[in-house]
Amino acid sequence: MKKIAVLTSGGDAPGMNACIRAVVRTGIFHGMEMYGIMYGYDGMINGEIQRMESHAVSNIVQRGGTILKSARSEMFRTKEGRKKAYEQLQKHGIEGLVAIGGDGTFTGAKVFYEEYGIPTIGCPGTIDNDIFGTDFTIGFDTAINTALEAIDKIRDTAAAHDRIFFIEVMGRDSGYIAVECGLGGGAEMVMVPETKTTLNEVVEKLKGSRKTKTSSVIVVAEGDEEGSAAEIMEKVKHTINDDSKDFKVTTLGHIQRGGSPTGKDRMLASRCGMAAVEGLMNGQANCMAGIIHDEVVYTSFEDCITKSKPLNRDTLKLIEILSI
Amino acid sequence: MKKIAVLTSGGDAPGMNACIRAVVRTGIFHGMEMYGIMYGYDGMINGEIQRMESHAVSNIVQRGGTILKSARSEMFRTKEGRKKAYEQLQKHGIEGLVAIGGDGTFTGAKVFYEEYGIPTIGCPGTIDNDIFGTDFTIGFDTAINTALEAIDKIRDTAAAHDRIFFIEVMGRDSGYIAVECGLGGGAEMVMVPETKTTLNEVVEKLKGSRKTKTSSVIVVAEGDEEGSAAEIMEKVKHTINDDSKDFKVTTLGHIQRGGSPTGKDRMLASRCGMAAVEGLMNGQANCMAGIIHDEVVYTSFEDCITKSKPLNRDTLKLIEILSI
Amino acid sequence: MKKIAVLTSGGDAPGMNACIRAVVRTGIFHGMEMYGIMYGYDGMINGEIQRMESHAVSNIVQRGGTILKSARSEMFRTKEGRKKAYEQLQKHGIEGLVAIGGDGTFTGAKVFYEEYGIPTIGCPGTIDNDIFGTDFTIGFDTAINTALEAIDKIRDTAAAHDRIFFIEVMGRDSGYIAVECGLGGGAEMVMVPETKTTLNEVVEKLKGSRKTKTSSVIVVAEGDEEGSAAEIMEKVKHTINDDSKDFKVTTLGHIQRGGSPTGKDRMLASRCGMAAVEGLMNGQANCMAGIIHDEVVYTSFEDCITKSKPLNRDTLKLIEILSI
Amino acid sequence: MKKIAVLTSGGDAPGMNACIRAVVRTGIFHGMEMYGIMYGYDGMINGEIQRMESHAVSNIVQRGGTILKSARSEMFRTKEGRKKAYEQLQKHGIEGLVAIGGDGTFTGAKVFYEEYGIPTIGCPGTIDNDIFGTDFTIGFDTAINTALEAIDKIRDTAAAHDRIFFIEVMGRDSGYIAVECGLGGGAEMVMVPETKTTLNEVVEKLKGSRKTKTSSVIVVAEGDEEGSAAEIMEKVKHTINDDSKDFKVTTLGHIQRGGSPTGKDRMLASRCGMAAVEGLMNGQANCMAGIIHDEVVYTSFEDCITKSKPLNRDTLKLIEILSI
Repeated sequence: MKKIAVLTSGGDAPGMNACIRAVVRTGIFHGMEMYGIMYGYDGMINGEIQRMESHAVSNIVQRGGTILKSARSEMFRTKEGRKKAYEQLQKHGIEGLVAIGGDGTFTGAKVFYEEYGIPTIGCPGTIDNDIFGTDFTIGFDTAINTALEAIDKIRDTAAAHDRIFFIEVMGRDSGYIAVECGLGGGAEMVMVPETKTTLNEVVEKLKGSRKTKTSSVIVVAEGDEEGSAAEIMEKVKHTINDDSKDFKVTTLGHIQRGGSPTGKDRMLASRCGMAAVEGLMNGQANCMAGIIHDEVVYTSFEDCITKSKPLNRDTLKLIEILSI
Repeated sequence: MKKIAVLTSGGDAPGMNACIRAVVRTGIFHGMEMYGIMYGYDGMINGEIQRMESHAVSNIVQRGGTILKSARSEMFRTKEGRKKAYEQLQKHGIEGLVAIGGDGTFTGAKVFYEEYGIPTIGCPGTIDNDIFGTDFTIGFDTAINTALEAIDKIRDTAAAHDRIFFIEVMGRDSGYIAVECGLGGGAEMVMVPETKTTLNEVVEKLKGSRKTKTSSVIVVAEGDEEGSAAEIMEKVKHTINDDSKDFKVTTLGHIQRGGSPTGKDRMLASRCGMAAVEGLMNGQANCMAGIIHDEVVYTSFEDCITKSKPLNRDTLKLIEILSI
Repeated sequence: MKKIAVLTSGGDAPGMNACIRAVVRTGIFHGMEMYGIMYGYDGMINGEIQRMESHAVSNIVQRGGTILKSARSEMFRTKEGRKKAYEQLQKHGIEGLVAIGGDGTFTGAKVFYEEYGIPTIGCPGTIDNDIFGTDFTIGFDTAINTALEAIDKIRDTAAAHDRIFFIEVMGRDSGYIAVECGLGGGAEMVMVPETKTTLNEVVEKLKGSRKTKTSSVIVVAEGDEEGSAAEIMEKVKHTINDDSKDFKVTTLGHIQRGGSPTGKDRMLASRCGMAAVEGLMNGQANCMAGIIHDEVVYTSFEDCITKSKPLNRDTLKLIEILSI
Repeated sequence: MKKIAVLTSGGDAPGMNACIRAVVRTGIFHGMEMYGIMYGYDGMINGEIQRMESHAVSNIVQRGGTILKSARSEMFRTKEGRKKAYEQLQKHGIEGLVAIGGDGTFTGAKVFYEEYGIPTIGCPGTIDNDIFGTDFTIGFDTAINTALEAIDKIRDTAAAHDRIFFIEVMGRDSGYIAVECGLGGGAEMVMVPETKTTLNEVVEKLKGSRKTKTSSVIVVAEGDEEGSAAEIMEKVKHTINDDSKDFKVTTLGHIQRGGSPTGKDRMLASRCGMAAVEGLMNGQANCMAGIIHDEVVYTSFEDCITKSKPLNRDTLKLIEILSI
């Protein structure tokens, strides 16, 4: 293998640049020519492919976003789109691919591999941490710390006014971010899609904590079955028949996707990036390079996509204990 | 004057603690007994008044929120409430008052002074910067930097996906925060209550910048006449008939009220706090201690409440130039 | 067991407060009376022991330092000191102990246990990560992120002036912090006590990177065998006979010990704190509660003190590859 | 005037990029061709001059360092060097110059202007704030906030161990940074070059505060007449004959020069940059564009270099009061 290309796809995540840097430099270290594809699969179809030397990834390890830009490609879901993509790779002589992204990215890579056989290895780049085959995903740790900084600030104002704040964090269908933020943010309660929390439980909890505490924080995962944080707050207010201004809601939103990656994310991204290139060199393909228990593990795209990584329920128990 | 009390009232702002510290220690330095009133005017009415020694304000200069807690008091708007408040002060022998807050706080202080003659001096504590009689208010600089950090993060993801972000910042009826954030955040445009910006102008600006730029940020003050950032975004999407996912909205919300105060806010808070106490000692009353052109200035509550501080329109011009 | 006391000892580390909170609340959750001992073993000897209710640990999960204060005790190394300490515990009816700290803390706890049989469990609180029996220590992740933020800033000025910076980070005899900072900070090279790096290697590396890069960062662990960062820089300058102002040194120092803990450290501290209390309840003693591969593991103090945790040498390799 | 070039010179400062952006875009807005000169005066001599379009300064408003790089030029101090520089400007048709930097930068610009008559306007870019003709310099506010964040962290560990910390901050011959950090950081004392503080005063202060406080911070300006923070600490320890480990020293160093600029610095940099270009268009030259009392003021290089801006002594008084 002499030419490898790298792309980022799907929602961006802090650490993607550190991963790109690791992919490019590991390839060059092993004597390969490295290429970058802009805008994910769309750029592959459109031939936005460029040679990357070592200096092209200088001074990016600490940057949020992705210098290769990202996109969600509709065209790549069509046979025609993938054919064009293949032709572009052929044209540039690309023999291997590293795709940094999440579920959708790996689904596309899998289909493409099965059709055209270009060896592809994925790196888990998403803040949601909902990918089987790796303890953590690139961007998760940064998203948590960004959210925690925000929650710490909100606690200042919650404490100053004896308020109850419902804070919505990201995570799509997964409660990973919410659980870590809830524990680290000293929340009274965390509402996640993986468990059923009734409004009654929320109301009881708040009534209980009102006796010993003056302010409270409830962290809500965006995918919770009871609705958004704003909806839940309204229902709670209605249930306890309290129309005071003591209830507030904040939706953290897209700040959780940006920012300079944490040390953990830079390390994880660098290790996955290196493992992806060395995996390709060693004949691996159609799989993701993740880190489990501090070791590199290659997991088939099939498993990454279809298997689910359970939430650590001990942590939910811990939050309950610590919120007394 | 031998006994002075301090309270915080209205929305909390970073730097209130630094101000409390300065009030308490300046008073003690000059040989006075200092008292803290909890929960603003409500606590005054309820007699939540306690002696504060120097160590009571140790290690708080860097803390967000307010150790004296804050509230908006309905009772203090009644004659009866103010009578009770006066009796409490009498009971504790309080001869002077420092009230840290904004417009509402000063309105209450003014009425109370006119009724009972307890000398009161205000300190401008609000993130909104909309108070006449001081170049800046305590908390404004911190709120801007908090919002800018968030905007910088959002720009990462905006740039990665070539998106247009509408970001709503606080400021009530004032565009101060929005203007500083717009300039510092490299926004394409800023929408503030003080100026009329039509949807057409937004659309034209975006069409123009789409030619040279791939991503854009528009900062919207919460009090803008066109509605919230979410409403404006929907109108813009409708106008240009673009239903793509390239438009996103984020409402920064209460993170702007919390956090450790900046150096500027610690300095401003400390100077105003000292000036308030020394003003009381020198016979000042019924006024606010602010800083104008680096000098302490006492402005009557009357002027603080009724006069308005104009937005620097040169800055709006500057944003326009810098967004080309 | 009805009464448990907790103390922090040795160098402080971010997350100690989160650990204290978890210890206290877990104990209360299980119906115990909880006590805090001030100033580590010194406070135990002097009887600075106080009851802690749930609210005593409110709003501290995000705070650096330790509300129980810390110290290195000379007196506890004497038989007489430990006797007094035992008497104080007896006086308060303390039946179990949680000691948060590092090697020295556990050594003291072990001797004390062997002499007086008070069940004691440790929590790994040190930024250095040099403790056997846990993947990470409380404070390590925060120290890395603090150091990385500093290194990111230094890179700005290094890049602006084409300079070579030698940056010294903490870690006592261990290179853990240096390795993570070197990788995350995009360093050209990392010098740690665990490996021999000659000055010639540094000089050769710098000569090589001068061809492709304009600025460089070399991270030096404080315990490196070649001396401090300042000494190494002088030797390198002398060796390559370059007296220019392009070489600079920065010693990060005590900023690495402070600051609000990261999400990871809050989680780790909370889990260890809970595990320590539940361990005592289940009859464990004379051991440390750590987390290995996401599971609670109890390791005897003996092993914690005498066994060493090896540095992951793959990471050193990775730094070499990524610095091309 | 049709062609203007911009350069950064001397020590770098956060906000230089925001200033470059404002210079370039203001020029383009007014129909001019804009050029960037790399490495300050050295690059002018060597002809490292390139055209800058609007997109060349995209996404840099928030970046530390300077994309034009900076240097201190020996060659520009020679007649020969300046002659070459002039020839390079002639070659590119440059008719006006914006020089971002401090004293040294303006001294060079003044001599060059007097010899060759190329209209030049300066922008005050230095963290030290020691330039006459502007209330604040670009980078000062960021440096203060960076130092304060570090001091806040150090206070965590100081408080945990009841220690006395001597913290050295930058500022060359000026105490501006030290004074703001001392006040904002809640220091017991500030030692600056502008005032004489004897060791006895330090010792007396520490003895006094030991009675009421358990930990103390003393901020030392790097230019203090008593020596470095490390030297002062040793002298103090010797004087009070205390050889304990309770005294610690930290030199913040180059972290103060880097990092993303604060809102204040982005605003100041943008206004000065615009004012410099508009000044050149209006026939101004041989002067600096600064902001005094929120208004643009042009001050002759002569005055900027020879006049000194006094320290606000009220602030020193304030620190004394607040440290009781």
